[in-house]
Amino acid sequence: MNKWIPPVAGLAAGILAATLVFGGGGPRTEQTATSTAKNTNAEKVYVPFGEKDEYYLMASGGHSGQMFVYGVPSMRKIRTIPVFSPDSATGYGYDEHSKKMLGDFTWGDLHHPAISETKGEYDGKYLFATDVANSRAAVVNLETFTTRDIINVPNTSGPHCAAFVTENTEYMFLPTRFAVPIGSEYASLDDYSEKYRGVMSAVTFDQEKEKLNVAYQVALPPWSYDLSDAGKGMSSDWAVMTTYNTEEATTNLEINASQADRDYIVLFNWKELEKMIQDGKYDEVTGQKMIFPEKHKGGIYLVPVAKSPHGVDVTPDGTRFIASGKLAPAMTVFSFEKAFEAVKKGDFEGERNGIPVLKYESVMEREVNPENALGPLHTQFDDKGMALTTMFISSEIVKWDPNTGETLDRVAVQYSPGHAAAAEGDTASPDGKYIVALNKLAKDTYLSVGPSHPESMQLIDLAGKKMEVIQSAPVDPEPHYAQMIKADKIKTISVYDIDKKNPDAISSNEDARIERKGNEVHVYGTAMRSKFTFDAKAKRPDVIEVNQGDKVYIHLTNIDLDQDITHGFGINKYDLNMEVQPGQTNTLVFTADKAGTFPLYCTNFCSALHQEMSGYLLVKPK
Amino acid sequence: MNKWIPPVAGLAAGILAATLVFGGGGPRTEQTATSTAKNTNAEKVYVPFGEKDEYYLMASGGHSGQMFVYGVPSMRKIRTIPVFSPDSATGYGYDEHSKKMLGDFTWGDLHHPAISETKGEYDGKYLFATDVANSRAAVVNLETFTTRDIINVPNTSGPHCAAFVTENTEYMFLPTRFAVPIGSEYASLDDYSEKYRGVMSAVTFDQEKEKLNVAYQVALPPWSYDLSDAGKGMSSDWAVMTTYNTEEATTNLEINASQADRDYIVLFNWKELEKMIQDGKYDEVTGQKMIFPEKHKGGIYLVPVAKSPHGVDVTPDGTRFIASGKLAPAMTVFSFEKAFEAVKKGDFEGERNGIPVLKYESVMEREVNPENALGPLHTQFDDKGMALTTMFISSEIVKWDPNTGETLDRVAVQYSPGHAAAAEGDTASPDGKYIVALNKLAKDTYLSVGPSHPESMQLIDLAGKKMEVIQSAPVDPEPHYAQMIKADKIKTISVYDIDKKNPDAISSNEDARIERKGNEVHVYGTAMRSKFTFDAKAKRPDVIEVNQGDKVYIHLTNIDLDQDITHGFGINKYDLNMEVQPGQTNTLVFTADKAGTFPLYCTNFCSALHQEMSGYLLVKPK
Repeated sequence: MNKWIPPVAGLAAGILAATLVFGGGGPRTEQTATSTAKNTNAEKVYVPFGEKDEYYLMASGGHSGQMFVYGVPSMRKIRTIPVFSPDSATGYGYDEHSKKMLGDFTWGDLHHPAISETKGEYDGKYLFATDVANSRAAVVNLETFTTRDIINVPNTSGPHCAAFVTENTEYMFLPTRFAVPIGSEYASLDDYSEKYRGVMSAVTFDQEKEKLNVAYQVALPPWSYDLSDAGKGMSSDWAVMTTYNTEEATTNLEINASQADRDYIVLFNWKELEKMIQDGKYDEVTGQKMIFPEKHKGGIYLVPVAKSPHGVDVTPDGTRFIASGKLAPAMTVFSFEKAFEAVKKGDFEGERNGIPVLKYESVMEREVNPENALGPLHTQFDDKGMALTTMFISSEIVKWDPNTGETLDRVAVQYSPGHAAAAEGDTASPDGKYIVALNKLAKDTYLSVGPSHPESMQLIDLAGKKMEVIQSAPVDPEPHYAQMIKADKIKTISVYDIDKKNPDAISSNEDARIERKGNEVHVYGTAMRSKFTFDAKAKRPDVIEVNQGDKVYIHLTNIDLDQDITHGFGINKYDLNMEVQPGQTNTLVFTADKAGTFPLYCTNFCSALHQEMSGYLLVKPK
Repeated sequence: MNKWIPPVAGLAAGILAATLVFGGGGPRTEQTATSTAKNTNAEKVYVPFGEKDEYYLMASGGHSGQMFVYGVPSMRKIRTIPVFSPDSATGYGYDEHSKKMLGDFTWGDLHHPAISETKGEYDGKYLFATDVANSRAAVVNLETFTTRDIINVPNTSGPHCAAFVTENTEYMFLPTRFAVPIGSEYASLDDYSEKYRGVMSAVTFDQEKEKLNVAYQVALPPWSYDLSDAGKGMSSDWAVMTTYNTEEATTNLEINASQADRDYIVLFNWKELEKMIQDGKYDEVTGQKMIFPEKHKGGIYLVPVAKSPHGVDVTPDGTRFIASGKLAPAMTVFSFEKAFEAVKKGDFEGERNGIPVLKYESVMEREVNPENALGPLHTQFDDKGMALTTMFISSEIVKWDPNTGETLDRVAVQYSPGHAAAAEGDTASPDGKYIVALNKLAKDTYLSVGPSHPESMQLIDLAGKKMEVIQSAPVDPEPHYAQMIKADKIKTISVYDIDKKNPDAISSNEDARIERKGNEVHVYGTAMRSKFTFDAKAKRPDVIEVNQGDKVYIHLTNIDLDQDITHGFGINKYDLNMEVQPGQTNTLVFTADKAGTFPLYCTNFCSALHQEMSGYLLVKPK
């Protein structure tokens, strides 16, 4: 399998040369070749007014910290969902609910989104995400496309290889890219192998309360965990993760973490781990139940794999997992059945860091190495179970048969694809219609916007005889991974019911009032085209007057129960901002520390008299 | 002209009814009617790989605080330029330069962008913008698409009706939407007419230093200034602004600011104002040179106009200005020539707040009222000087002839357009090819993303016999105004030259070093595929070790001088984040107040070994 392993020192140059050689080809000529009215690529991606896109693409926004929602096939971006970073546009991070969720963090790095699943199919209810930057996990409700809960994941640093959910969303597993001493306390890197750990967290979600919870953790060796996938069908109690830096290098990883010929796939049985927790086979560490595999044996195994793998993906039928070799040109197909047998028989080649190591030969089914296909990273699947693997270095997607290893088709993409997202691609029954390549480099694809170029997503039509790039969409940094779900699976609400149980909500202008309690001022107000009412009985109902130093609570309910009539609320120079969607109540809390006259206004254009939807915050000096 | 003035109380319902009645029509049927291969709307907006868009659309991001850059005709969003709000994706607001520019503000409301002009034509060099939320002005360099300067505009509150530049970018005029006491000190609204003012700021830009400056200010009456435009050609020394709330109402503006049958256009000669400043005809107020028109006469006049106008737009030939009546169904065409004559003759009907009022009849040329066209807001122009006016309430764009008032064409848009942006539309020579309608409501146009819908921009083809909507693009909140510039006018750079004069920059790994001065630690490091080098001589060159409480300066230079190879730099759990574009040096400054082990990593996927581009910040406890 080791036909091509680049000399590490020359790798950077190699990548560039490879993209230049392989990147520019295919689609351009093919696009000009076909052009009957309804079969042009233009027609294929055009969704005229009155029609809707067929799929939602839920793309991570990478270091924007947010989620990006696209329509497919138009590749139009419909929405940014703020998740891990504040958002000026929607007041996310300003109103009390979102401010508390964000805590002290002002940015995030959202890598892998996962739609909730029922019986191995996307159910369209929730979307999970993790933050590599500040080690958090979040959940987005897909009735409203709003973030409902964020938790800090303790004892971990950079839960990169998450969130992937089990078949019925029992768990998300969050292993970490960076090893740190448990609890992140200071420890010299000379003590790396003894004191550092890569901790995996098993996170559950309570749908009723819309709350995430760390159920338990596993103290893995101090390696980097890159990607993971949950089993399906016959493998549904299991999950797999790739590792790199099993060398336990502490500097210059580019070279030092690329030494060993083999790293590992971590294979674990989460039902067994769950049982170990029930049986008390764990230690209590900083308030968490933590399994130390060298101490509490069972449930976790290592499978040797070609050096520094990146992706690992379970086939839709759940019988195999496929690892892609970042530094090896091959995809390796492993058999769950073989692995289970080897585990059953105790057929190990030894232990590493206290974890049994299965024999490569007894789990591996096939090594697949399409000619000149370089830098395989991630694999998705079509409706026939065929594999679609991104090639970062040779800038293409290769379609191949996991049953035979045969290469079926190839398509050039522009340039350097990381992940790809096929229609219903992570489910037990992919649709096979489209795949989107999430390319890391755009180079000269779009109008230039200076030294920093956009990323680029490309839509590939899988329905024809040959795969074909039919649309290119520039993207803000950085769509890292995405899932594509059939549009009719998402059931949104169009307005909120005014929450009568919420003491902060009011449902008519007459109830608007300002209550003072000592130096606290509580405003119960409404937004309705085209005015704010804070105090129904006042001479000026749209004015809030307070004393300097008062703590001010502004509870605002949007009583415009019309589709698409969102109101905003901003206070000039006070750096305050929130939105209220139709029927929603939101709260801003601040201390009126600056005396003076501060206009307040609706930030969301709502009617012909939107400009008139303003008032004043008057802060009397001390 | 007053054929249709809605009863104010029923206005909200009226708007909805009107959009329902007028909004759904035209384009859908027309789109399905035509379909020969190259003439379909799909073909018209499709830009295949290997080709580029013809125009840049520079759209304001409204309350996102940012600028959005689109390609036309594809309507693909290429870039978000962070301006008034921090940006997790690019580290804007974290590195020292952008952090200082943003000051204490964390959100903005960017309303009207303006491209710099030379001889009345967009010159593609700079882009100006103002912030309604926190009263700021900014400038973006279009070689790099980065924000270079932001100023707080003193004595003002909400510079909404800006930025529009004069013919050679001599000035931007920033009048304010909200009246406040000068300096924003506290004053009762009972004293509104005496103590409140709407202040207009004349801002200049020094290209060499890339610095904005408030040249002088004018203390206008306490009205709301809505939009402005600068003169051209024969009117190039002049500018116009619309007003509302000349009633000086202090509450419930929806009704109280809509009482008077006439508001005003403020017409002023900026050369004369400049001369008044030179002649000392101003007061010094809070450090600013301020003209009080009731005291220092000359240069400013009022032109009566139909109640509560919104937009005012100067024709490409500079001979006329057109006001659009938000609460009147008519566009009013005024003649600069007539206005100049009246000013010369002193033909006034009196004064208002010390400013001479011209006679409506002696300046007005024509009232134009296309049948059933409701809610005219803003006017752009085509290559033949024909006017294109958005109708907010009847949801359409009407093409009409300013010379005759004749209605030439109409096209339905979905729904409620605010501004529109024509190709080179604000210049002395519009291109006439496209206009983009910036719609405030999308309703059911796109896949639903919950109660809050995207905004919607629609591309209209002006080249055919009839105007036709050829593409709809959903938009994050909220593109308020945009300018469309021919792509070849923008000359970007592709990498930065490493700035040898910058003491923080280094150009090779060997120069990487960490210098300690007392409890200050200065890191001079590099980013290069696929590693960070902070200290060339250290055992671990990619590790920064400091003591708890140290003040840490990290100067990072991207020495990868390859197109599109941007590196990011994030520190886990420390909430720190910046980017370095190729050749760029950037600085992060922070106090290492948390002891422990914190992974640092490249946030911008840069190579096959990007995952390996990481290191550690070790903070030794006190």
